[in-house]
Amino acid sequence: MATELYDLTLPGFVRGLKALSAILDKATAHAGATGVDPESYLVLRLSETMNPLIKQVQTVCDSPKLCVARLSGVAAPVHDDSEKTIADLQGRIADTLAYLQSVPRSAIDGQEGKDIVVTFPGGEMKFLGQPYVTGFAVPNFYFHLTTAYGLLRQAGVPLGKRDYMGVPG
Amino acid sequence: MATELYDLTLPGFVRGLKALSAILDKATAHAGATGVDPESYLVLRLSETMNPLIKQVQTVCDSPKLCVARLSGVAAPVHDDSEKTIADLQGRIADTLAYLQSVPRSAIDGQEGKDIVVTFPGGEMKFLGQPYVTGFAVPNFYFHLTTAYGLLRQAGVPLGKRDYMGVPG
Repeated sequence: MATELYDLTLPGFVRGLKALSAILDKATAHAGATGVDPESYLVLRLSETMNPLIKQVQTVCDSPKLCVARLSGVAAPVHDDSEKTIADLQGRIADTLAYLQSVPRSAIDGQEGKDIVVTFPGGEMKFLGQPYVTGFAVPNFYFHLTTAYGLLRQAGVPLGKRDYMGVPG
Repeated sequence: MATELYDLTLPGFVRGLKALSAILDKATAHAGATGVDPESYLVLRLSETMNPLIKQVQTVCDSPKLCVARLSGVAAPVHDDSEKTIADLQGRIADTLAYLQSVPRSAIDGQEGKDIVVTFPGGEMKFLGQPYVTGFAVPNFYFHLTTAYGLLRQAGVPLGKRDYMGVPG
């Protein structure tokens, strides 16, 4: 009855990415209704030392993409962070969802003990598959999703908690 | 090799609550260094329609407490949201950690199919144990932890992503 790794990753990632897409649609609609350039949202930051909304959205996409690629070994699409508009970001979300949904359960289940190395400028972190998912990939995914949501809510986009939680399934 | 429910809940909740405690310590230190009343942070909000920091911290505590109580059936301490200071909030975090760490693995593992009902003003939501954890309790926990972190970072408290991620174990 314990939970397979696919169920620990895919449903939440897919639901969160769809929620993000719907949140960005609401941002576009709010910009239209209030006469604001929707792209003005993309440079918003919570602080000068945090990444702006555009990078938060890119990271909401990369976090599950890299997680699933590392666990499954299925090559992921490369994105060069060249998006400039909300429409561009919607394309990236759709591309990420298509990749995630293309990876079969059989490539993810059973990888709980796989060695995972996350490299970043200046170092690397080593995990086994299961603690990598629950202790790194999932908290990271929700960090950037929440931050994107918070930035748009602070900008006045009419959002509620349900927009963040999304729709299961 | 699949993941038991205890491992899906306790380690992440404990790490996140300890991270929140350390973040609040940094906020207190920053307030002292800059001559700000540390309690002035507690009323900060990302928008007028979102809860202030004090409520975000209370909810970071309640989310795992209620999750573990619902899964395990082990009675949880009652908190009446009477905190007024960061020291009060630190007490609540400590109390929550003590409860979480008192619940045995045997009371949580195997509850994947348990009927869970979450009631709120105006309605209720029904789940089975596993989708309740991965689709509700965990995203909710990280939402409020990220929002608390973002509010303090926006207020100038010197925080980085590692403060949010905390220390495993």
